[in-house]
Amino acid sequence: MSAASGRLCVVLVGASNPLNIGAAARAMSNFGFLRLRVVSPYDVAFREAKSAVGAASLLTNAEEFKGVAEAVADCTLVVGTTAVRHRELQHPLRRLEYGARLIRKELATGRVALVFGPEKTGLSNDDLSYCHWLMNIPTREQHISMNLGQAVAVCLYELVRNGKKTAAAKERKEKRASAGEVERISDGLLEALHLSGYVKPIAVTSTEERVRRMVRRMNLSSRDAELWLGTFRQILWKIKAARD
Amino acid sequence: MSAASGRLCVVLVGASNPLNIGAAARAMSNFGFLRLRVVSPYDVAFREAKSAVGAASLLTNAEEFKGVAEAVADCTLVVGTTAVRHRELQHPLRRLEYGARLIRKELATGRVALVFGPEKTGLSNDDLSYCHWLMNIPTREQHISMNLGQAVAVCLYELVRNGKKTAAAKERKEKRASAGEVERISDGLLEALHLSGYVKPIAVTSTEERVRRMVRRMNLSSRDAELWLGTFRQILWKIKAARD
Repeated sequence: MSAASGRLCVVLVGASNPLNIGAAARAMSNFGFLRLRVVSPYDVAFREAKSAVGAASLLTNAEEFKGVAEAVADCTLVVGTTAVRHRELQHPLRRLEYGARLIRKELATGRVALVFGPEKTGLSNDDLSYCHWLMNIPTREQHISMNLGQAVAVCLYELVRNGKKTAAAKERKEKRASAGEVERISDGLLEALHLSGYVKPIAVTSTEERVRRMVRRMNLSSRDAELWLGTFRQILWKIKAARD
Repeated sequence: MSAASGRLCVVLVGASNPLNIGAAARAMSNFGFLRLRVVSPYDVAFREAKSAVGAASLLTNAEEFKGVAEAVADCTLVVGTTAVRHRELQHPLRRLEYGARLIRKELATGRVALVFGPEKTGLSNDDLSYCHWLMNIPTREQHISMNLGQAVAVCLYELVRNGKKTAAAKERKEKRASAGEVERISDGLLEALHLSGYVKPIAVTSTEERVRRMVRRMNLSSRDAELWLGTFRQILWKIKAARD
């Protein structure tokens, strides 16, 4: 496993079929990505998945998380996969060919989460709110929904695929904020909005999702994340002090 | 199905697991290749393969052959797939990235067979003798053997993959916030910071500059600019109301 591929985490959310988890693990092993994270898998016996030929240790070392937030907390880029084209997506949607290029760039220095949703429903709006952007595989309109194990295989293949020589690596950008930092900023802003009466009880969930997406679209560097955290901390302190 | 993709036949030789045949059929349907040929499948019940979500008619229309020769007889190019690297291959061996280019060229006018061997053994020397050349998927040395359904998915993806779509140009770009909108956000944030006592009088200028730069680095869309403006307006209102 190269240093870069060691920084990619494949995150399976709510997978219901152990065979699919096994198939995903096998494709990961084929293409040299060994970090698997599972969020609330339907079947706790997933580690014995039979189709994981040659990937037993990868399954044994898989990490389990209760939620998407925890599973992606240490990642600087979180990419959700989706088959959807026409739903009103609140995120930028990138085709695999292009999205994989952005992921490879980020992997040069950062940790990336590639998130796959449950077989039948795909990622929920709440799951998506933790993602910086979404990626889709160019399937045909009449049959867009891929099998989970095959979708993982195709995405990882595109990541290792060696096309023509690409332009020399650009100057290194700033280190990006981790998902955990971004989440703390969302929390700070949400608390300020709650205390300010901006959030109507009837629309709590949709507002929270909207704010979470809005903060992710800021595309923060680690340095700016600190500035924003300090900023909201101060505003919160003021609002609370005024209230007491 | 375009005329070109209608000229590709996926040929599965001696597949022993109906689930794999179903998975291959599903990937074919996903990527718009609808001609499946099977050579002496182990299980005659393959047409009922459960994992062929959305590909039932493709399985129903699959053609059965007794041998590879009959299955590829009408094809002008026959490409075998293999995981093997070091066996004494009598054929040219091409990586998928390059091999797919040759296949696409041939499909412009000719019929191509893409042949996959049995799960456990791969194509026999006899099977290989019907092939013009061989193709392999760039898996890692320590784990070269892929699941059949996943191998089919990856090969077909490479065939439909559109390298030109790697340009960012296709991406749906949101209208960017105007400089005026960005400035109003900076003003709102600065006012909140002043009122919160975050800005020390001695450092007013440097703080203001830093906040202005920080807001510009958000790289806001016009839509998000409105959200942020509303957000700061509400927070300011709260702070001022509390003070009065």
